[in-house]
Amino acid sequence: MTVTCVYVHVKPEHVQDFIDATTANHLESVKEKGNLRFDFVQQADDPCHFMVYEAYRSDEEAAAHKSTPHYLRWREAVADMMAEPRKGMKYNILQPSEI
Amino acid sequence: MTVTCVYVHVKPEHVQDFIDATTANHLESVKEKGNLRFDFVQQADDPCHFMVYEAYRSDEEAAAHKSTPHYLRWREAVADMMAEPRKGMKYNILQPSEI
Repeated sequence: MTVTCVYVHVKPEHVQDFIDATTANHLESVKEKGNLRFDFVQQADDPCHFMVYEAYRSDEEAAAHKSTPHYLRWREAVADMMAEPRKGMKYNILQPSEI
Repeated sequence: MTVTCVYVHVKPEHVQDFIDATTANHLESVKEKGNLRFDFVQQADDPCHFMVYEAYRSDEEAAAHKSTPHYLRWREAVADMMAEPRKGMKYNILQPSEI
């Protein structure tokens, strides 16, 4: 099982648009085969900073996410909303061992 | 709903001990009232870096975690395993809106 944390710094004037676009992406992503989590969170002390916590059963299923219409729509929609390039961190899940 | 991401950099010689101690903490933490997630992940490109992704239904339930015997045991057990002080980041959950 594999996790990607995507950290996004959004321009202040685009915060609500970013929330709307990422919520739409979340709602489709959780239906994908192999998706375990697609949590969308906002930093408590800075509303311009967000993180998407994406967990998939396999690397292949995680990679397939990047070819979905909803991901491609999201990527295009948010490109000009970001204050700096987003950063992705990859992790392996140790626990829970069964989800 | 609230999330804390705890980032831990562990000394190489303590990686397995840290995995054991944090797995024990995970197994009890997921039984706590209000706990939604307590995922324990290891950075894919650096096995000395870990993250614990903790989600609780309320701030009060998240705070209560820090008084549990398993958390206190973990805190003491891992104190000397860390290469630098651990860092916590607080987030508010936007999606999923129902978990």
